[in-house]
Amino acid sequence: MGGVSVDEAMRRAIELGARGLGTTSPNPVVGCVLLDADGVVVGEGFHAYTGGPHAEIVALAQAGERARGGTAVVTLEPCDHTGRTGPCSHALIRAGIARVVIAVPDPNPVASGGAATLRAAGVRVEFGVRADEAEAGNVAWLTSMRRGWPYLIWKYAATLDGRSAAADGSSMWITSEAARMDVHALRGTVDAVIAGVGTVLADDPRLTARNLRDGTLAIRQPLRVVVDSAGRTPADARVRDGAARTWIATVAEVGAGPDGRVDLPALLAELHHRGVRAALLEGGPRLAGAFLAAGLVDRVVGYVAPKLLGAGPTALVDAGVTTIADAIDLEITDVTRVGSDLRITALPRKREA
Amino acid sequence: MGGVSVDEAMRRAIELGARGLGTTSPNPVVGCVLLDADGVVVGEGFHAYTGGPHAEIVALAQAGERARGGTAVVTLEPCDHTGRTGPCSHALIRAGIARVVIAVPDPNPVASGGAATLRAAGVRVEFGVRADEAEAGNVAWLTSMRRGWPYLIWKYAATLDGRSAAADGSSMWITSEAARMDVHALRGTVDAVIAGVGTVLADDPRLTARNLRDGTLAIRQPLRVVVDSAGRTPADARVRDGAARTWIATVAEVGAGPDGRVDLPALLAELHHRGVRAALLEGGPRLAGAFLAAGLVDRVVGYVAPKLLGAGPTALVDAGVTTIADAIDLEITDVTRVGSDLRITALPRKREA
Ligand SMILES: NC(=O)c1ccc[n+]([C@@H]2O[C@H](COP(=O)([O-])OP(=O)(O)OC[C@H]3O[C@@H](n4cnc5c(N)ncnc54)[C@H](OP(=O)(O)O)[C@@H]3O)[C@@H](O)[C@H]2O)c1
Ligand SMILES: NC(=O)c1ccc[n+]([C@@H]2O[C@H](COP(=O)([O-])OP(=O)(O)OC[C@H]3O[C@@H](n4cnc5c(N)ncnc54)[C@H](OP(=O)(O)O)[C@@H]3O)[C@@H](O)[C@H]2O)c1
Repeated sequence: MGGVSVDEAMRRAIELGARGLGTTSPNPVVGCVLLDADGVVVGEGFHAYTGGPHAEIVALAQAGERARGGTAVVTLEPCDHTGRTGPCSHALIRAGIARVVIAVPDPNPVASGGAATLRAAGVRVEFGVRADEAEAGNVAWLTSMRRGWPYLIWKYAATLDGRSAAADGSSMWITSEAARMDVHALRGTVDAVIAGVGTVLADDPRLTARNLRDGTLAIRQPLRVVVDSAGRTPADARVRDGAARTWIATVAEVGAGPDGRVDLPALLAELHHRGVRAALLEGGPRLAGAFLAAGLVDRVVGYVAPKLLGAGPTALVDAGVTTIADAIDLEITDVTRVGSDLRITALPRKREA
Repeated sequence: MGGVSVDEAMRRAIELGARGLGTTSPNPVVGCVLLDADGVVVGEGFHAYTGGPHAEIVALAQAGERARGGTAVVTLEPCDHTGRTGPCSHALIRAGIARVVIAVPDPNPVASGGAATLRAAGVRVEFGVRADEAEAGNVAWLTSMRRGWPYLIWKYAATLDGRSAAADGSSMWITSEAARMDVHALRGTVDAVIAGVGTVLADDPRLTARNLRDGTLAIRQPLRVVVDSAGRTPADARVRDGAARTWIATVAEVGAGPDGRVDLPALLAELHHRGVRAALLEGGPRLAGAFLAAGLVDRVVGYVAPKLLGAGPTALVDAGVTTIADAIDLEITDVTRVGSDLRITALPRKREA
């Protein structure tokens, strides 16, 4: 069996790390591949769930004595602090690893320092292999750690002509079952799902991650957040059904913005404080408009159904734009057919302040 | 040089035929490949422009004596009538062609009969090779000939949230230059461009096919049609600038529908009568709604810009739909990036009457 290159090992480590997406928060996803001195893979691991062993520990356990003198290829700088598991830096040193190749440095002020500890122990440390790819795999976590509030994905569903319901308010179902299943999968990758009280009052959604075929709940449920200035969410609203944790975010608790409604930056800061790294904004159109106007959306995911309505509520309202030159500019990064619908993913372009 | 199969020759003939798209109307696009007895290509031709020689005549001229005993592979049944050029059926017989392979029969009541004439002269005639492909290449012409009114393409431009202008009415430019150039190319493939008087009054468009870089007009211009019940199009409107023919279609000339406005089926019948086979409906939202509500749209081409507005006029109004179950269902057949925009092509699904 021939060896693999460090580059190839990193590709594999990124792939492994991605398997943890949705179950590691508030931790990042991490993958690790261990190579012996001949470049033969002797251990693989990824961080699978919050509180579970880190990627490096899993890989070291698999490699055993074969790790000695070898290279650890990791997607993120190994941690240096004693959290739920011991510091990975120490474990790598103890196992006799000679060289650690890292894609992305750890932005976490508590965890970082792993590289310094390794170097102090005489381990060769290198950064930057497949950094863009590893960064992309951890984009929500890295972004939220660097700036202190969650990575926010706005998801909407609309017809080709931009309507989210018909003139009489009916909207079941605009999109195909495949698209709705995709949304539930998306919910499974975030730590919180956010909706406005307008949507709760109109549609009484559950906001849980479910198997749409049999209704069973996913094991891990995102926190349900209702943005509700005056606490108008009914006592018997489905979001309060106990199937997942729920936070009714009111002005009384979060504070008010200039318009007297829930202060959105303060809301996001509080969510970060509660360990939310990625959040899914599910609407409605008015709350989405407020988040977009404030420049707080990191990614747009639109499910566009091949239907025309010509009347009815639109998918987005009041985004603070009055003239075409001020339109919120996006860059489309992906277009995928999901059932009969299109899923369009786009990133807001940075705007000058 | 080895020979090619009849199937391969038809693929080539369809490819050749497509080169005429936009310049042959009211004639179809047609391609022809001549094979000698050994299957070697001895002639190729396509119908390039209205009044020009038919595909078969071009190919026969190229082949000369080598056509004798050979096979003519044609995308459409050869004509049998003496129009601007002599009947192709006679020319094929005279050249000594032994076998004619046709993709699609001619639906034109005046031109058809070519196959019968050929058979009567002892020529072997076969139908159906790559018929779907040839049909698709001629879809506008075939559809319009079969039912007696033009193939209608509705084109619109909108933001991702379905707005065709911002709150203050500004819309220059929602889409990228590449998308606007694509629209001009699309105009070059149709015989008529249709707009509502609302759009003429609001935007004063030229509705010509131009080179956007230097403003020069395409050699062939579609007929400009303004749907204008009471003849409100201003005398100095740009659509009247003489750069192309213009028809202000009023109730007085076309007749009124149940709502007292221009009768749309009668409008389309009149366009057919004037030789229009494919027409491009460019809006606005209200006229598009009326055409869609009447089930008169054959293809939807949406240019979707990666922008969000959250306010402003929508791309479609009053399409006769009030509840989600009655939405106009489409099937997306193509999604292509054009500059920074998406061009989404979709076909309305047949609705029960
Ligand atoms: N197609 C889709 O993807 C989709 C998704 C979701 C919903 N919908 C539809 O959207 C409709 C409801 O939309 P909506 O616009 O009425 O309600 P919404 O966007 O769900 O909620 C808006 C409400 O949120 C509250 N809010 C609190 N703080 C806010 C802030 N800083 N900025 C903005 N809003 C704030 C406000 O009420 P308070 O001031 O009382 O708090 C506001 O009226 C429903 O018909 C639903 O079917 C469609
Ligand atoms: N984004 C895009 O792709 C796009 C394209 C074009 C226009 N636009 C925008 O659309 C706006 C104008 O749209 P609009 O809806 O006001 O006008 P419109 O759709 O261009 O024209 C509507 C008018 O057409 C006339 N009409 C005649 N017969 C009709 C019939 N059977 N059904 C419906 N209408 C009939 C009616 O006026 P009469 O009864 O007086 O004849 C009607 O008011 C402009 O602001 C323009 O910028 C956008």
